[in-house]
Amino acid sequence: MRGLMMDYQLTLSAIIERAAGLYPAREIVSRNPDTSIARSSYGAVIGRARRLASALQTLGLQRGDRVATLAWNHARHLEAYYGIPSGGFVVHTLNLRLHADDLAYIATHAGDRAIIVDDSLLPLLEQFRAHTSIDFVIVIRHSDTPLPAGMIDYEALLAAAAPDGSEFPPLDEHDACGMCYTSGTTGRPKGVVYSHRALCLHTLAQAAGSSIGAGEDDTVLAIVPMFHANAWGIPFLGAMVGCRQVLPGPHLDAANLLDLIARERVTIIAGVPTIMLGLLAVLDANPGKHDVSSVRQALVGGSAVPVSLIKSFKERHGIQILQGWGMTETAPLASVGSVPPELAGLSADELHGYRARQGRPAPFVEIRARAEDGIAPWDGIAMGELEVRGPWVVSAYYDSPESADRFTPDGWFRTGDIASIHPDGGIEIRDRSKDLIKSGGEWISSVALENALMGHPAVAEAAVIACAEAKWQERPLAVVVCKAGQTTTHEELTAYLLTQFPKWWMPDATEFVEAIPRTTAGKFLKSALRTRFAERLLRVTG
Amino acid sequence: MRGLMMDYQLTLSAIIERAAGLYPAREIVSRNPDTSIARSSYGAVIGRARRLASALQTLGLQRGDRVATLAWNHARHLEAYYGIPSGGFVVHTLNLRLHADDLAYIATHAGDRAIIVDDSLLPLLEQFRAHTSIDFVIVIRHSDTPLPAGMIDYEALLAAAAPDGSEFPPLDEHDACGMCYTSGTTGRPKGVVYSHRALCLHTLAQAAGSSIGAGEDDTVLAIVPMFHANAWGIPFLGAMVGCRQVLPGPHLDAANLLDLIARERVTIIAGVPTIMLGLLAVLDANPGKHDVSSVRQALVGGSAVPVSLIKSFKERHGIQILQGWGMTETAPLASVGSVPPELAGLSADELHGYRARQGRPAPFVEIRARAEDGIAPWDGIAMGELEVRGPWVVSAYYDSPESADRFTPDGWFRTGDIASIHPDGGIEIRDRSKDLIKSGGEWISSVALENALMGHPAVAEAAVIACAEAKWQERPLAVVVCKAGQTTTHEELTAYLLTQFPKWWMPDATEFVEAIPRTTAGKFLKSALRTRFAERLLRVTG
Repeated sequence: MRGLMMDYQLTLSAIIERAAGLYPAREIVSRNPDTSIARSSYGAVIGRARRLASALQTLGLQRGDRVATLAWNHARHLEAYYGIPSGGFVVHTLNLRLHADDLAYIATHAGDRAIIVDDSLLPLLEQFRAHTSIDFVIVIRHSDTPLPAGMIDYEALLAAAAPDGSEFPPLDEHDACGMCYTSGTTGRPKGVVYSHRALCLHTLAQAAGSSIGAGEDDTVLAIVPMFHANAWGIPFLGAMVGCRQVLPGPHLDAANLLDLIARERVTIIAGVPTIMLGLLAVLDANPGKHDVSSVRQALVGGSAVPVSLIKSFKERHGIQILQGWGMTETAPLASVGSVPPELAGLSADELHGYRARQGRPAPFVEIRARAEDGIAPWDGIAMGELEVRGPWVVSAYYDSPESADRFTPDGWFRTGDIASIHPDGGIEIRDRSKDLIKSGGEWISSVALENALMGHPAVAEAAVIACAEAKWQERPLAVVVCKAGQTTTHEELTAYLLTQFPKWWMPDATEFVEAIPRTTAGKFLKSALRTRFAERLLRVTG
Repeated sequence: MRGLMMDYQLTLSAIIERAAGLYPAREIVSRNPDTSIARSSYGAVIGRARRLASALQTLGLQRGDRVATLAWNHARHLEAYYGIPSGGFVVHTLNLRLHADDLAYIATHAGDRAIIVDDSLLPLLEQFRAHTSIDFVIVIRHSDTPLPAGMIDYEALLAAAAPDGSEFPPLDEHDACGMCYTSGTTGRPKGVVYSHRALCLHTLAQAAGSSIGAGEDDTVLAIVPMFHANAWGIPFLGAMVGCRQVLPGPHLDAANLLDLIARERVTIIAGVPTIMLGLLAVLDANPGKHDVSSVRQALVGGSAVPVSLIKSFKERHGIQILQGWGMTETAPLASVGSVPPELAGLSADELHGYRARQGRPAPFVEIRARAEDGIAPWDGIAMGELEVRGPWVVSAYYDSPESADRFTPDGWFRTGDIASIHPDGGIEIRDRSKDLIKSGGEWISSVALENALMGHPAVAEAAVIACAEAKWQERPLAVVVCKAGQTTTHEELTAYLLTQFPKWWMPDATEFVEAIPRTTAGKFLKSALRTRFAERLLRVTG
């Protein structure tokens, strides 16, 4: 027996149309390249998104054609987020921090036919455009410098387009709406193709009170770039719940962000741990200077959140960090670290520790950890590769038959993360599978050691990598950045770690460095550390 | 271009399975017939739901077969809510307040093959069972009275079934999961067939912060019966967000409900205005006796919520009423009366007035008001029949070709409500189309007059009906119940109404009565008033 309900399609355009009707005056605030503030609204942004959709059609683009963006977080990028998929095209966000060779590969592999680009990023585009089949370059001009020949001015394109009121075409919920390539540290970048349905369901799940739970009263600052996993879905969440959005433009330094938070009375911020560490350093160094009293929650994800960061923000600055976990392949939100009421009696430190886990799965997201001998129990101890499935989880990479091994025979996605699952369903990521250290047949979690090291008063940042060793196969090496004006020693850190971990987990050596190299997503680039310390490893293991 | 995301089916069993994993110990509290309290949990309820699903299969029921329930709100009814659809069957909630003839018609029309019934309701079942094709009567026994021959004991059935851990079968999201018949005041009852997809999406939308926004910290008391429009979706919302659920059993009197609220520290209650009026009367009559300080929100819907009710609860008892609007045909939640932040500066009375509207549409729900000359503008003035569409809106009634006129040629559902839509998308229901009073070619809203009359200090309840009249075609008649110990007059009420409405809206007469008859859903039964006052009408119009 079939249900007798309407076959209503879940499309982003339905979210966008509704926002235009319900929240036309709600503000979209952008930081311009010259640090001035630009104010728009859902009504204006969506009106312009309609024009963009119509203009792309006029250019000759067909349903399903990919339109890339190469831009910072600002209102016109949001127009592209809304207008491209609502017009039946596919918005493909390019990561402006990638090397031009990678961008050439990605834009070509995706088949991008048009690109919307910030004028400041034209020099980057010029490094790879010739290697792609991009026909139309549409430039968002933040200055008066003349447009190079053959390029289209974004404002002129919109001005010539059908008026704001034009309707979006009807779409199928299984149609592609967006693409994003994963910037993996090994192998070629791989493309994830989102469907309208997937992102609509993802947005509904985010709007739930136990998730981000943003509402109309909130002002959300997406520090996470719009070229990283859909800015964690915040652009669409905003349109669904009608929260004010604040977009920082290219100014991601702590001083500018803190100024924006205070000035716009931001209530929710979203960013990776690296950014949060930067904010924390400036807040701590300038007591009373920055007003962050409006912030009720910080959504932090992208890599493991050290418990010391959670504790510092909560206890010194009154900001609650909520950890989310996910990947480009999971749209990205798959789990959220909210605290169940039964734990209300825990001590503050115990709660911080709980919040340092990756949280429990969102509605309709299923998780399991696969150990070598089968599915691991939810005991918080047994480790295995985390596998997920759900309506906003990738089923295959775009045109990438060689990555079929990332999916299990029964249709789950293999995340590459090694995790334990606690009895309450809480995920605790122990490591990326490739970063895990296997010593004498037992696993050592580099993430656990790193997070512990970052809790030491003299340590600003720490990464732990595996080094080959004859007897134990692999042994840990710590790479540490000290806080300004502070020093410590390998012996002191070892004594500190011994209070939390067994002796055989202790790094064999500690390297003190000025900075730890990062991926474009702000994660520690451990492959670079492995290269850099290849000689050092030989000495450790020799 | 198609998306490359998993084709994950949205089924209630996915919500239920997840609840079993994440919230096994979270409490389900039921009031027994003898007013004692029974405590269960999501883990126990879902384990038993698995057994129920397996037992129904063992009885020989097939995928899609209808299993009726005839029961009050309690944990075993919740087991039926979870187990029947998760097992691939269709849960058909029968309204125990209907006449046996109607129940016979409904159970026969739906093709119910089995029924799960409270022992206290067996006498009702015996009045109509013979007219149906129900094969299996499964009795929930709340007492030790012996089971009539040929009936199945619910507990014995579960005890004999496969153990708790048995898996639910894979289902298609378009499969039917539930049925509910509308108890219309005209014509035969009509059946709505819900799909898994529709109720899953409805649940996600409810979980959003701007909707009910219940979370793990909440304790929700569903006063609304589980045989009314899926208890407004609270059973599934609870399983998704993990809130505690409190179920009042057959004890819906104010004293028992207030006791339950205080005893279980309820944070959210959900019920129709009639119930809320009853709670208010007892609270007002017994200052300090009942502790309702735990309640942060009351979800009220089912019929228009008088502004005086909203004001009284907020100002005298600190309870914020949130109005929801919907119908059995919309699963039911279609709009919610949350207040946008721009209105924060309004006076308390203005805010109460805003909250007396029916709210703005939920995500993916579209609304429009169709006037005689086309779609009415969103100006808060123009009235028309409210039409809706969305993923949890009925597309056709079950086996009811004669009701095809309830759907527009372009696929919207005609609600039968006359509404204005405000510029912010807020719905203001002016009347049921059949209750609207057309005087001299202009419409008078009976609902507006009723709500105003119920704001008069001497008035407990008021209904306004149309009477035929020669000159103006129709004129309003007021039917009023005075508060205990209070009196008023037609002239005094007219003077009161004249401060808010034009002279031609004034009722031609006022009838003072002891009580206003109600539908089984607690709405004023205006057809009975029209019958009762047929003579009176003649005098008014003569």
